[in-house]
Amino acid sequence: MSELSSRPEARAPRGFADKRAADLRVERRILEAVSQVYERYGFEPLDTGAFEYADALGKFLPDADRPNEGVFALRDDDDQWMALRYDLTAPLARFVAEAWETLPKPFRRYAFGPVWRNEKPGPGRNRQFIQCDADTVGSDRPEADAEIIAMALAGYAAAGLADGTCVLKINNRKLLNGLLAASGVADAGQKLAVLRAVDKLDRLGRDGVAALLGAGRRDESGAFTHGAQLAAAAIDAVLAFVEAGAGARESVLDRIANVIGGSAEGDEGLSELARIGEALTRMGVAQQAAVFEPSVVRGLEYYTGAVFEAELVLPGAEAETARFGSVGGGGRYDDLVARFTGARTPATGFSFGVSRLAAALEAAGASAAAGEATRGPVVILALDGALMGDYFAMAAELRASGLAAEVYLGASGMRAQMKYADRRLSPAAVIVGGDEIAKGVVTIKDLDLGRRLAGEVSDNRAWREDRPGQVSAPRADWVAEVRRIVEAAG
Amino acid sequence: MSELSSRPEARAPRGFADKRAADLRVERRILEAVSQVYERYGFEPLDTGAFEYADALGKFLPDADRPNEGVFALRDDDDQWMALRYDLTAPLARFVAEAWETLPKPFRRYAFGPVWRNEKPGPGRNRQFIQCDADTVGSDRPEADAEIIAMALAGYAAAGLADGTCVLKINNRKLLNGLLAASGVADAGQKLAVLRAVDKLDRLGRDGVAALLGAGRRDESGAFTHGAQLAAAAIDAVLAFVEAGAGARESVLDRIANVIGGSAEGDEGLSELARIGEALTRMGVAQQAAVFEPSVVRGLEYYTGAVFEAELVLPGAEAETARFGSVGGGGRYDDLVARFTGARTPATGFSFGVSRLAAALEAAGASAAAGEATRGPVVILALDGALMGDYFAMAAELRASGLAAEVYLGASGMRAQMKYADRRLSPAAVIVGGDEIAKGVVTIKDLDLGRRLAGEVSDNRAWREDRPGQVSAPRADWVAEVRRIVEAAG
Repeated sequence: MSELSSRPEARAPRGFADKRAADLRVERRILEAVSQVYERYGFEPLDTGAFEYADALGKFLPDADRPNEGVFALRDDDDQWMALRYDLTAPLARFVAEAWETLPKPFRRYAFGPVWRNEKPGPGRNRQFIQCDADTVGSDRPEADAEIIAMALAGYAAAGLADGTCVLKINNRKLLNGLLAASGVADAGQKLAVLRAVDKLDRLGRDGVAALLGAGRRDESGAFTHGAQLAAAAIDAVLAFVEAGAGARESVLDRIANVIGGSAEGDEGLSELARIGEALTRMGVAQQAAVFEPSVVRGLEYYTGAVFEAELVLPGAEAETARFGSVGGGGRYDDLVARFTGARTPATGFSFGVSRLAAALEAAGASAAAGEATRGPVVILALDGALMGDYFAMAAELRASGLAAEVYLGASGMRAQMKYADRRLSPAAVIVGGDEIAKGVVTIKDLDLGRRLAGEVSDNRAWREDRPGQVSAPRADWVAEVRRIVEAAG
Repeated sequence: MSELSSRPEARAPRGFADKRAADLRVERRILEAVSQVYERYGFEPLDTGAFEYADALGKFLPDADRPNEGVFALRDDDDQWMALRYDLTAPLARFVAEAWETLPKPFRRYAFGPVWRNEKPGPGRNRQFIQCDADTVGSDRPEADAEIIAMALAGYAAAGLADGTCVLKINNRKLLNGLLAASGVADAGQKLAVLRAVDKLDRLGRDGVAALLGAGRRDESGAFTHGAQLAAAAIDAVLAFVEAGAGARESVLDRIANVIGGSAEGDEGLSELARIGEALTRMGVAQQAAVFEPSVVRGLEYYTGAVFEAELVLPGAEAETARFGSVGGGGRYDDLVARFTGARTPATGFSFGVSRLAAALEAAGASAAAGEATRGPVVILALDGALMGDYFAMAAELRASGLAAEVYLGASGMRAQMKYADRRLSPAAVIVGGDEIAKGVVTIKDLDLGRRLAGEVSDNRAWREDRPGQVSAPRADWVAEVRRIVEAAG
């Protein structure tokens, strides 16, 4: 604390944002609501440390020259490389492999917390963000996937999404694999090109995808993308497959069965989807809430079977603006634990996009929740030093009645104190000076009303003369009066 | 995922612990309860990123040779050193300095989350742990300290500590400073030696401290500790001061006033304590819950005035075992923001010891809470593949009624499934096979009763024959029956 001569600059590292009350409260409410749902489905919480040994993170293993590639890594004092977790799946795989013998199996856990990506920071591109995952490890039953899907939907509803605004789209990697096998496509590179082409259906439409499945496609700028080089029959089959969605789950299954060809892998995928659909129906999941959608392609390479994507559709006038996009996703990954143990360990999971969901809730106009999230405490003005004791006793009274309240503790005058209360979005200011003491009353200012009226500039004079929203309550009754004002502000 | 030949070992980095459900649930309940109290006092949540620039962390600034000294530090791709936060105060100081112009002042915030210390890991010594802080920045009023103290006490109560088990001990750095000034002690090294000696009162007693205040002390092993070299009159004054505690706040103040001498700094400390005491009384804080205790010395150098320490006293037979020790502390630090801005910015805060409090709650035998924290879901056994749909529908029924429930999703037989339910500490197992279907009933096993009876080995035969805790409920009534069993288990 001594050398104030060379002062450091006060700034957060690039890509690390400070989160204030409004955002934090929304985020916490989501996490609490989702946690409650997950617990009700029998998932237990797990928290692993921020660091993992770099070799446990798999492909993100840093090399000696570029230890920070993709992750934040450093060498421990015993020379082992450690890295901050970049997701919650890799630490789960490590934990499960380490504790397998002692775990109840199947092992269901949920987790939430920060993850870190060492990427180039930019506007709106954070290097730390919150993930919220649920996974079942040790069950290869398709019903485990169904349970995860039903639970994710219940989580979105608990977080505040209105019925019908969130759709879980379900696909199975084995279907397209099987279809390609039946069409004689075995090359891994070709398969990847097909996945990439299908992933662009939304953006390029049927013709664009057809071109990318075949010879290739030239875009408006003249740039040419090489295609997957499928034969015409295979292209037709793929297109028929990805367009087999829409409608009730069973009818989609029928359509898929017609186009999938007769490969073992395709049949496996079909049977898994059928069992997922049956379990969903028995759990009471509506047809329109969880649909089979063959065009869904999840980017992560490690998925081995079912894949899910949660898409948010906000009610809006135009079809284009109505789609908010993905707010979460997941799928079955049967190989992650095997990295450690060598033994194939079936697993399936879902990851909530907490930040995107928070943004979606805001866009969906959950304004009541937003108002609550920014709401400040009732502020008791500190107008007379001799009355500070009274102010504290009054604050304690308000808190005891369940209201958030504080005494202004700065050194400024009344005007600045009112500005302070306004800045904190306080619902009410409580004013007690010599006048009030003499009359045995408490003056209460309804600040929300003041803010509303300040917006309606039409009749400034009436505002000044009538002093709307300012009431004088007898000392015996003042807490009830404050409560009335706070509750009216909602 | 390809080269399974060289498999990494599954282990967490040293000093980073995996937290399971029981501990996590207790920790979360504490944080939620405390957050609610803090919000009611008008404190807003704030979350800063895990990293700060190393120069912003102050004395923990790593040098080029030993970048990891004390903190986890790494060089960003623009060559600036970043380090993981080691507490929540340094990031607050940085945030306040950065955002000062835009903040409502005084600025009250609370925060909780992991902090990291790069220390030698050992048994029970973690390098990541949770802190929970509340601070008021921008008020030099002693009432701001009083508010923090009252709020901390309310936080401990909300977290589950019984009345009278937590005592906030309050002191003021200015008192001892003033006393030493009045005794002609001005040397900084000598002052520090006095603080260190006073800090050992609990351990060494009056005579030991007297020796350390004077020439020095030789312990049982023969090792000699040099003393503060105070004169006899000064030693008496210090001892009279540190022994002035015990009793109601006002009487302690009177006793302190008698021994403190007539220095300006001492008088300032006295007047601050008096105002803190008055505000505490007006906020309804009991005399025995917040006491003035001149022997309290907080280690951190940056405190400049009032200091607080929360001590837990568990009811127990012996005086020695009754003291659990510190579960939190804080104080006034008026210089931290000045590191950045050069302008003195008064601040006061309190830090909850979340892990220690969790341990204390366990020690205090909050067994109901502990039982709830480890409680697993109701497990519906999967005995007949053809009935899986029924099982899922039943799980959905239980969840809809608010109970945590799951269908067993593994591939094992009934015996292993019962063992699974037991391992998860499920309150009940639900059994539906061909028999039950034929009779239109559901068999429910009370697993808590089973566990209790298994403990009482006396009458094993009765247990087998009567099958206590196993009931058969008609299909129309089975959810209510499960609920009865779960609620009886508490």
